[in-house]
Amino acid sequence: MSTVGKVIKCKAAIVFEAKGPFKIVEIEVAPPKAHEVRIKILGTGICRTDEHVQAGAIKVNYPVIPGHEAVGIVESIGEGVTCVKPGDKVIPLCLPQCGRCPPCKNPEGNMCQKSDFLTAKGVMYDGTSRFSYKGKPVHNFVNTSTFTEYTVVHEDAVVKIDPAAPIEKACLMGCGFSTGYGAATKTAKVTPGSSCAVFGLGGVGLAVVMGCKAAGASRIIGINRSKEKFPKAKEVGATECVSPLDFKKPIQEVLLDMTDGEGVDYSFEVVGSTETMIAALASCNMNYGTSVVVGAPPSASEMTLSPTLIFTGRTWKGSVLGGLKSKDDVPVLVSELMAKKFNLDPLITHVLPFDKINEGFELLRNGKCIRTVLKM
Amino acid sequence: MSTVGKVIKCKAAIVFEAKGPFKIVEIEVAPPKAHEVRIKILGTGICRTDEHVQAGAIKVNYPVIPGHEAVGIVESIGEGVTCVKPGDKVIPLCLPQCGRCPPCKNPEGNMCQKSDFLTAKGVMYDGTSRFSYKGKPVHNFVNTSTFTEYTVVHEDAVVKIDPAAPIEKACLMGCGFSTGYGAATKTAKVTPGSSCAVFGLGGVGLAVVMGCKAAGASRIIGINRSKEKFPKAKEVGATECVSPLDFKKPIQEVLLDMTDGEGVDYSFEVVGSTETMIAALASCNMNYGTSVVVGAPPSASEMTLSPTLIFTGRTWKGSVLGGLKSKDDVPVLVSELMAKKFNLDPLITHVLPFDKINEGFELLRNGKCIRTVLKM
Repeated sequence: MSTVGKVIKCKAAIVFEAKGPFKIVEIEVAPPKAHEVRIKILGTGICRTDEHVQAGAIKVNYPVIPGHEAVGIVESIGEGVTCVKPGDKVIPLCLPQCGRCPPCKNPEGNMCQKSDFLTAKGVMYDGTSRFSYKGKPVHNFVNTSTFTEYTVVHEDAVVKIDPAAPIEKACLMGCGFSTGYGAATKTAKVTPGSSCAVFGLGGVGLAVVMGCKAAGASRIIGINRSKEKFPKAKEVGATECVSPLDFKKPIQEVLLDMTDGEGVDYSFEVVGSTETMIAALASCNMNYGTSVVVGAPPSASEMTLSPTLIFTGRTWKGSVLGGLKSKDDVPVLVSELMAKKFNLDPLITHVLPFDKINEGFELLRNGKCIRTVLKM
Repeated sequence: MSTVGKVIKCKAAIVFEAKGPFKIVEIEVAPPKAHEVRIKILGTGICRTDEHVQAGAIKVNYPVIPGHEAVGIVESIGEGVTCVKPGDKVIPLCLPQCGRCPPCKNPEGNMCQKSDFLTAKGVMYDGTSRFSYKGKPVHNFVNTSTFTEYTVVHEDAVVKIDPAAPIEKACLMGCGFSTGYGAATKTAKVTPGSSCAVFGLGGVGLAVVMGCKAAGASRIIGINRSKEKFPKAKEVGATECVSPLDFKKPIQEVLLDMTDGEGVDYSFEVVGSTETMIAALASCNMNYGTSVVVGAPPSASEMTLSPTLIFTGRTWKGSVLGGLKSKDDVPVLVSELMAKKFNLDPLITHVLPFDKINEGFELLRNGKCIRTVLKM
């Protein structure tokens, strides 16, 4: 029996309050309104940002359904939707691309003004939610919400992908892989033969390493406190790895020593620590080096540094979703995945059924996984 | 009688100690050694950096002959010099370009490793000086020293220019104009139709405005506390000017208001204040904006800012000599000057005889000039 135009009852993982667990409950998902798309989620990755929502580390409205890295099938579309049709395999976009606002129109921009990333209202464009639990509305998260069997997103926040794309791997194109890979290829524009340093070798850091490799970097130095991360980093492209714990001197001085005093051409901070951001900046060449901040900094944090670090010519850039324009670039990455331009197997360490979502977050908190994907 | 191969006695302006005045005395200038060039200085600009030397605000070895923005004629050359010959009109280069070190080889680099900008030794490559006063050596400044009738520089630090170039205007190509103009055209790579904000409307700031205009910016907002600078800024290309003193809110909020909340595409800090550097950064678009630090920060200063200013995608860059490769780019700027691509008349407010150097510095300290050029 068709569900089109009807409310769907399904399972979703709700965080009812900061620091509360994910509770899997039955919710109601309203049909899509005009320019909205209802999606049956097939698989969804667990990202650090979702953990921040659960932990209350970033501002959101509760109750909320997190999750923003997924693959699904379009169940139905609202009036006026032309970009996808029922049955299409799609990726919900945690950074929409409306195509009309200044960041969308700027070649270097991608923070679409329709994004809820900074506003964190957790509702559709009309100010209401399509999710309800026991008759009360539940908020969405960064225009997506994928920890649910069905979600509704605006057509700005969904893109069709190759129907043959494998669920687990394509999930990562919605956030983790794109963020790291794009930081190297799009934000930094790593050049062939260059030297790179990647601070933090979690899932996104490994994607940065893969991006540096794909861009033709000849030297890719992985930096991580725990050496457990080194074999996988080398598997995906790091040419050498160092742990700051092995040195008495600051890690930026270690990197200068490793590069004849020049520093690397490109450095990437994928930790989210202000201390590491400054170390990464100081590690790139003082004149022509570029340092990219990929890791999300703690809210309300500040950092203190010498302006000389900038003055002598360095470039310091931020990168959200790897600087990619979501609608334009995510399907291209999926195509490149299908063409085996890169191999995501090393990044996906766990696949769990959706019901085991809290177990998946335990793996994240304990550093026991690279990426865990939940399958519906 | 030829002076070639002989010591030349001439006038020079020496700073004997930090905070001491410029004293014009007779010095001895030794002949150029291998790969060195002796230059008869025809005219030299007075730059804020020279004032820093006099005031002891930057590290140098005293006694020193400052001056680094000049035009001269090659008097004689040492063994092995091929890039210039006696009689050539030249510009000494305060940032050399050896062509062989990593910054010279990098397309985005320009801080040649032969530069004395950060090392501040004040001697030739062989560790000695060609200047002496009463039998004791006098230091040079940033590979040049132009507050003297004759100087000796390494061949890495001199470039031939069009012999028809007017002395006063060509002087500015050695530092002030190049620094500002290049910051817009080379470092920021301002795009046609873009919006720009220039913080600080002194000589270098005006050159930034001219660079933004030449690059095709459609909106150029000049920012300066004193409104006395506004008419000249508008004359060279600013489309509007604002003073922070006219607003209760921070200037970055004023600029956001002026740009529908978007911020400008490009902002330039040409003051050298850490507070202004952060204001300029915050004034450019949070996602695709670029902010360039042109003003030299005070030694040992620090700045504190939120990492979110970077994280959302902004680009923050430093720019020394406008990011230009001195040997490659300075003669091109001179040619563009001759082709009337820009007009330097508004920048040169005073021309004084060399003897009046202290008067020239008074004009600088009192904000009474844009650029003063001393003629020998």
